[in-house]
Amino acid sequence: MENFADRLLSAIQKKNSPCIVGLDPRLDSMPEFIKQSANVQSGGDVIRTAISTFHRLVIDAVYDLIPAVKAQSAFYEQYGIPGMMALLDTIDYAREKGLLAIIDAKRNDIGSTARAYASAFLVEESAWGIPVSAFNVDAITVTPYLGEDSLLPFVDACERCGKGIFVVVKTSNRGSRDFQDVLVETDSTRVPLYSIVGELVNTLSERAIGSKGYSSIGAVVGATFPSEASQLRRVMPQSIFLVPGFGAQGGGAEDAAACFNPDGLGAVVNASRSITYELPSLKITETELQDLIRSRSGRMIYEINAAVSNSRGHPSLR
Amino acid sequence: MENFADRLLSAIQKKNSPCIVGLDPRLDSMPEFIKQSANVQSGGDVIRTAISTFHRLVIDAVYDLIPAVKAQSAFYEQYGIPGMMALLDTIDYAREKGLLAIIDAKRNDIGSTARAYASAFLVEESAWGIPVSAFNVDAITVTPYLGEDSLLPFVDACERCGKGIFVVVKTSNRGSRDFQDVLVETDSTRVPLYSIVGELVNTLSERAIGSKGYSSIGAVVGATFPSEASQLRRVMPQSIFLVPGFGAQGGGAEDAAACFNPDGLGAVVNASRSITYELPSLKITETELQDLIRSRSGRMIYEINAAVSNSRGHPSLR
Repeated sequence: MENFADRLLSAIQKKNSPCIVGLDPRLDSMPEFIKQSANVQSGGDVIRTAISTFHRLVIDAVYDLIPAVKAQSAFYEQYGIPGMMALLDTIDYAREKGLLAIIDAKRNDIGSTARAYASAFLVEESAWGIPVSAFNVDAITVTPYLGEDSLLPFVDACERCGKGIFVVVKTSNRGSRDFQDVLVETDSTRVPLYSIVGELVNTLSERAIGSKGYSSIGAVVGATFPSEASQLRRVMPQSIFLVPGFGAQGGGAEDAAACFNPDGLGAVVNASRSITYELPSLKITETELQDLIRSRSGRMIYEINAAVSNSRGHPSLR
Repeated sequence: MENFADRLLSAIQKKNSPCIVGLDPRLDSMPEFIKQSANVQSGGDVIRTAISTFHRLVIDAVYDLIPAVKAQSAFYEQYGIPGMMALLDTIDYAREKGLLAIIDAKRNDIGSTARAYASAFLVEESAWGIPVSAFNVDAITVTPYLGEDSLLPFVDACERCGKGIFVVVKTSNRGSRDFQDVLVETDSTRVPLYSIVGELVNTLSERAIGSKGYSSIGAVVGATFPSEASQLRRVMPQSIFLVPGFGAQGGGAEDAAACFNPDGLGAVVNASRSITYELPSLKITETELQDLIRSRSGRMIYEINAAVSNSRGHPSLR
């Protein structure tokens, strides 16, 4: 398959949008009509039906505006097997509508186990001659704490299969300071750990550079720490940043803009709750829901594009 | 439910065994009779049947010898939904045979998402009044890179529901040196990052101390770095260590012994491949397989108990 970074950047440029929408099932925050229709239609599998129906409506409302969706694995896993079935439904439907599918699963482990995770999410495998359809997506988030050898199986999968990873470098939460910000002594100076992790990502990024100059080996960098983001932008010039923390978590468009390069590219900004939940009322109708999600997404795209333009003194991406 | 540390230590003492067996599905390494019987019995769901049958045989062979089993999530996830169904089968059967079930999933994320992971693995929840049976286990491994606030939802679940966590502190792979060993400047001295992570685990451990003086907030500490393990033993005296790296990964019994306290307790040592795979031939029969797994487990228990006794100059646990 074509290099992931190329596929993602093409979609960003085509849609003039570096914004993606998070699809995180929270049944108790879904509109009442979803619950009612799931109860009627599902013949028992209410949870899977509700999640898949809700995400289908969200995707229908925004697929022409955004390059990709991000599914947060935890919110599916909390619903067990029906949740994982809904994850597959959601991934399938997103791709049917031409969207890239990113799973935010923050997986990793030692080498042989990391290979199994890469198989689960990035590589199509077979076992005993039976094709195994696991949770095949375009890109996954992975954690760095286990070191370079734990990342290599994912990098291999990116190279071989045109897939992508986003290594967790600097997260959007307050607790990211506890370990990500510790100062580490190097030969000449002291640098925060996130910067050392960023340097490894930059080295690995060489292995999957696409025709547009960006790598399929990207980084998670939160929107809530813009000065750290600017610094990391310089450490990893070729990596695409997956930027959480916009909206519900408090990051503004100007903060997120720090994650972009001077060419106006190099990041995708995610919002989940602030796009799909936080509804004025759970009694909202299907049409009202889709209008709301579409207008919120449009507003976010406008704000991010404007902030990126302003901060770089560059013309809009269009 | 009773405190997890108490439940685990009772089982260790009752069975005179601090050793646990890892149940990690690798179809291509399973005996031929498993494949044949799965093909016949399954009516299509060959993968789930094969994994569940294999693990049932392993559990039957060793359940009276060990306190717990450890399921490595990656190896189930690589087989998609059938794999996750086999994970549920395996957890259920282990508990039916009186074993504690630990999932090695190395999950974590920011607070609200970490809560969803805690729901997925430690807390029985309901949604819309429907009881949700996710992947309910006794304990889970979690990663520390996102900081204290990411760990708190898991700690809460341990306190409220008698469950346990093992925070990844120092892993058994070579790459664990890359970030876990970086030297961090503190007020007075420089200490490796794993030690700082260990200090946080020790602080959190106060929140779930059982009647035997150990906490349900434990740590993953690899068997392959015994001097680091000894140091971490002092940093986290109340935490139970989950010790990977014995056997196939190269850690010996003397190395693993460094993870125990002078009371002969405080750790569970896991072996996976070296117990259930690495078979003399895939043509092995069911009886031969069970005899082999039982004798390998017995030998591991003997070696670990002897090494713990020797290293501490203490009588055997019996």
